Amino acid sequence: RSGEMAKLTQLIDNEVFRAYATYATIVLLKMMLMSLITAYFRISRKAFVNPEDTASFGKGENAKKYLRTDPCVERVRRGHLNDLENIVPFLGIGLLYALSGPELSTALLHFRIFTGARIAHTFAYLIPLPQPGRGLSWAVAYAVTISMAYKVLKTALYL
Amino acid sequence: RSGEMAKLTQLIDNEVFRAYATYATIVLLKMMLMSLITAYFRISRKAFVNPEDTASFGKGENAKKYLRTDPCVERVRRGHLNDLENIVPFLGIGLLYALSGPELSTALLHFRIFTGARIAHTFAYLIPLPQPGRGLSWAVAYAVTISMAYKVLKTALYL
Amino acid sequence: RSGEMAKLTQLIDNEVFRAYATYATIVLLKMMLMSLITAYFRISRKAFVNPEDTASFGKGENAKKYLRTDPCVERVRRGHLNDLENIVPFLGIGLLYALSGPELSTALLHFRIFTGARIAHTFAYLIPLPQPGRGLSWAVAYAVTISMAYKVLKTALYL
Repeated sequence: RSGEMAKLTQLIDNEVFRAYATYATIVLLKMMLMSLITAYFRISRKAFVNPEDTASFGKGENAKKYLRTDPCVERVRRGHLNDLENIVPFLGIGLLYALSGPELSTALLHFRIFTGARIAHTFAYLIPLPQPGRGLSWAVAYAVTISMAYKVLKTALYL
Repeated sequence: RSGEMAKLTQLIDNEVFRAYATYATIVLLKMMLMSLITAYFRISRKAFVNPEDTASFGKGENAKKYLRTDPCVERVRRGHLNDLENIVPFLGIGLLYALSGPELSTALLHFRIFTGARIAHTFAYLIPLPQPGRGLSWAVAYAVTISMAYKVLKTALYL
Repeated sequence: RSGEMAKLTQLIDNEVFRAYATYATIVLLKMMLMSLITAYFRISRKAFVNPEDTASFGKGENAKKYLRTDPCVERVRRGHLNDLENIVPFLGIGLLYALSGPELSTALLHFRIFTGARIAHTFAYLIPLPQPGRGLSWAVAYAVTISMAYKVLKTALYL
C-alpha cells in the first residue's frame, strides 16, 4: 500500500501537476465565493425565491413580498453560471493538458492567464465595468482553454 | 501496454482513490436523478418550455397552454443548479485532495459528510423542509470542500 | 523529475486514457461552442440582459429596448445548461471509468456513443427537431453514463 501511495504522491509532486492543482483550486474557490455573494445580496436586499426562506419575516402577505427578483442578485447569479460554463471546461481540459507533458513555463502561463482572466471577469461583471471589459476577460480565458485543448488533442488524439 | 494498465489499476486500487471514485460517482448519480425528477414533474404537471415538447397534446392554443412554468418544476431545477454549483468544486478539489496523500480515515470522513450533506440538501429542497434545514446541509458540504481545498493548497501549492 | 514526467506520459500513452482525453475534449469544446452561439444570437437579434452590453446602441430608452429575452437566445441557453447537467457527470464518471481498466473496445463504444448522442442532442435542440429526437439523444447519453458508473462502482466500491 505504501508503494502505491508513493506513486500517487509522485503525481502531486510533479511541478506541472502541482501548478494545475493550485490554479484549479483557486479558480474553484473563486466560483464558490459566488454562492456567498448571492446569499449576501439575497439577505441584505430581502429578495428570495423559496417561500420557506422568508418564513422568519412573518406569515402571509408580509413574507410574500420578499419573494421577488432583485437586479443585483440576478447579476451575481449570471456571473456564477458563466463561471460554471467556463471553469468546467478548464477543469477537464486543464487536467488532461497537465498530463500531456507540457513545458512547465508554458503550463504556468496558461494557468495564470486563465485564472487572472476569470478573476477579472468577476470584477467586470459585479462592479460592473463598461464593455468590452467583461467580454475581453471572458474571451482571454476562452482562448487559453482552446489552446490547451489543441495541445491535448495533438498529444493524445485517439478516435 | 499491460505494464501501463497495471499502473492505472494501481491508481484505482489505492484505497483513498477508490473511496473518492465511489463517493464522486454516488453524488454524480444523485445529481443525474434531478433530471429524471424534473422530467417527471414536467410530464405529470404538464408544464413545458419547448413548443416541440407539447406537440403530442394537439395543435395551436390547445398545446400552447402547457408552455408554462410550474412551481414544483422550478424548485427541482433550482436544486439541480445548486448541485452543479457545489458538486463541480467537489469533483475537482476532491480528486486533487485524493491525490495529495491524506489519511484514509480523514478522506473517508470528508467524502461521507459531503455526500450525506448533499443528499440531505436534496430532501430539504424537494420536501421542502423549513429553514435552516436546507441552509445547514448546504453549509456543511461547502465547509467540507473548503477543508479539502486547504489540504490541496498546503500540499501542492505552486504559483 | 524526468522520471516523474515519464510516468505521467505513460498515463496519457495508455490507449483507454487517450480515448477518454480525446472524447472529453471534443464534448467540452462542443459545450464551449454554445457560448459563441448564444453571443451570436444576442448580437444578431439584439437581445441582451446586462445594461452595460447595450451602451453602444445609445442612451436611455433607445438602449433599454434591447434589454429583452429572445426565444432563440433562451433556446441556446437551455441547450447549454443541459450540456452542463450531462457533460459534468460524463467528465467525472468517465475519468474514473477510464482508470477502472475497461476493455479498449468497450471504452471506445461508451465514449463514441456518448459524444455522438450529445452532438445529436444539440442539433435536435437548436433546429429544433420534433420529439422524441431530443429526448432520445438525451436518454442515450444518460444511459451510457449510468453504464460507466456501474463499472466504476463494481471495480472501485469502497464505502
